[in-house]
Amino acid sequence: MTQNIAVLGTGLMGAPMARNIAAGGYQVTAWNRTAAKARALADAGISAAQTPAEAVEQADFVISMLSDGKALLALLEEEALQKALRPGTLWIDMSSARPGEARAAAERLLGIDVGFIDAPVSGGPGGAEAGTLAIMAGAAPEDFEKARALLATMGRPTRVGPVGAGQLAKLANQAIVGIAIAAVAEATLLLERGGADPAGVREALRGGFADSTVLQLHGARMQQRDFTPGGPARLQLKDMENVLSEAGELDLPTVRQTRDRYARYLSELDGAERDHSGLFEELLDLNGLLTR
Amino acid sequence: MTQNIAVLGTGLMGAPMARNIAAGGYQVTAWNRTAAKARALADAGISAAQTPAEAVEQADFVISMLSDGKALLALLEEEALQKALRPGTLWIDMSSARPGEARAAAERLLGIDVGFIDAPVSGGPGGAEAGTLAIMAGAAPEDFEKARALLATMGRPTRVGPVGAGQLAKLANQAIVGIAIAAVAEATLLLERGGADPAGVREALRGGFADSTVLQLHGARMQQRDFTPGGPARLQLKDMENVLSEAGELDLPTVRQTRDRYARYLSELDGAERDHSGLFEELLDLNGLLTR
Repeated sequence: MTQNIAVLGTGLMGAPMARNIAAGGYQVTAWNRTAAKARALADAGISAAQTPAEAVEQADFVISMLSDGKALLALLEEEALQKALRPGTLWIDMSSARPGEARAAAERLLGIDVGFIDAPVSGGPGGAEAGTLAIMAGAAPEDFEKARALLATMGRPTRVGPVGAGQLAKLANQAIVGIAIAAVAEATLLLERGGADPAGVREALRGGFADSTVLQLHGARMQQRDFTPGGPARLQLKDMENVLSEAGELDLPTVRQTRDRYARYLSELDGAERDHSGLFEELLDLNGLLTR
Repeated sequence: MTQNIAVLGTGLMGAPMARNIAAGGYQVTAWNRTAAKARALADAGISAAQTPAEAVEQADFVISMLSDGKALLALLEEEALQKALRPGTLWIDMSSARPGEARAAAERLLGIDVGFIDAPVSGGPGGAEAGTLAIMAGAAPEDFEKARALLATMGRPTRVGPVGAGQLAKLANQAIVGIAIAAVAEATLLLERGGADPAGVREALRGGFADSTVLQLHGARMQQRDFTPGGPARLQLKDMENVLSEAGELDLPTVRQTRDRYARYLSELDGAERDHSGLFEELLDLNGLLTR
């Protein structure tokens, strides 16, 4: 029997994800705050609902792709939605939220016998369209097995622990990327000042221990002084703040130093809307070498 | 006509490199301070020379794979060697040395009309045996073209700038690896303390922006608390020191912080001969969580 999927939030990410779910043979009902965005999916056989409650009332699974965890928790407070959800439904939140927000959502839904998975993604709109998102799922093992085929229509799902662990994995991802940018910035400056060709070095290091997408992609942006986002530094700073907030008493010195430098990039160098690889500009400024 | 290659230094790296050169159709003469190691290559059709001078006297190319730049410069002082080198020979030093030592060697050889390339490698003994080393060459373009086919018998050569740039690229490589280890350590600790499964997260992040050999390989060592080297922390610290020394007046804050932490790992936590991923232990100690 065809399973019914409610997709809540069909923006830049949610829309292509809904299309991939429908293409996978599921019956999809979509809701979006700006209703036109949900209606625009009609050509893929996706019904548009007027309210979240209407979207979820027949759903076997709910997929939410909202702006953040606050938006998720606010939605779950709606009485009409709570009444519309059927016991046994599994709610999969694919937004980026805080681990504590994921756990709070799970607890809220437990009371009405609705399961919960936090499954944030990495890969951006390109990955969403191609159906190649990395999906980090925090879930009970049996819930993950139930959701696996559905998640696989959108990308590559991996269970990384219990509820909340998906969001924690996403934070770990962001921390590694932010620090990798700092490392590649320092390597690039060293090479430029020493008369080596950073593009040649990136090519030479391809496939080795120092290689990464950050080296190849963000390293090229640094060399070309092209800081058109991409991922804006403002969001990278927010990510680093969230990592430290989640870490609580834990001391993570490299995250801390990188967070401070992103903060300086925004406050002193107007970096908020520049690409996160613009941390290279902060490094140049630190060395009295920044010219714009 | 078959070209003659002198290989000076046939240790853990030099021996398999000499074998791959011979397998590539070159006539190889090897010299090693411990002569037995050069004689052990006879089965590959490689002649053993008694002295460096004897090794190089017929050479079109000299490949040196020594312990460091000091050993290279000391060798170049030997009068017999200088007399034995033919004008037009090209000397390729594949040892890890400092960029300034590479430039000094080039200048020394220029006086007797012998060209010079610094071409340090990444990939270790495994890469040397498989002939898949990443070879970072600092060279005049015409010298690099002359050497390309020979270098290709040992791995993947890329020109990264003029003489000295190969060694600078190797330092950039080491800086990125050291900082990546710090990043993966902090991500791993965050995940463990938050109840996520670091192995699941490494799998989830495979192929994405945060992925790297360091995440997969060193991340697993951290989770397993297995710090058998691999690359000892002592050498990683020396690399970070060399990066900062080469940077001179340049401020590289992430390299600096990581250097200080490796120094503390050695001085306070007996980390010298443990794997460089042991920086995770320094992080645990910083947080009062280290148990051995």
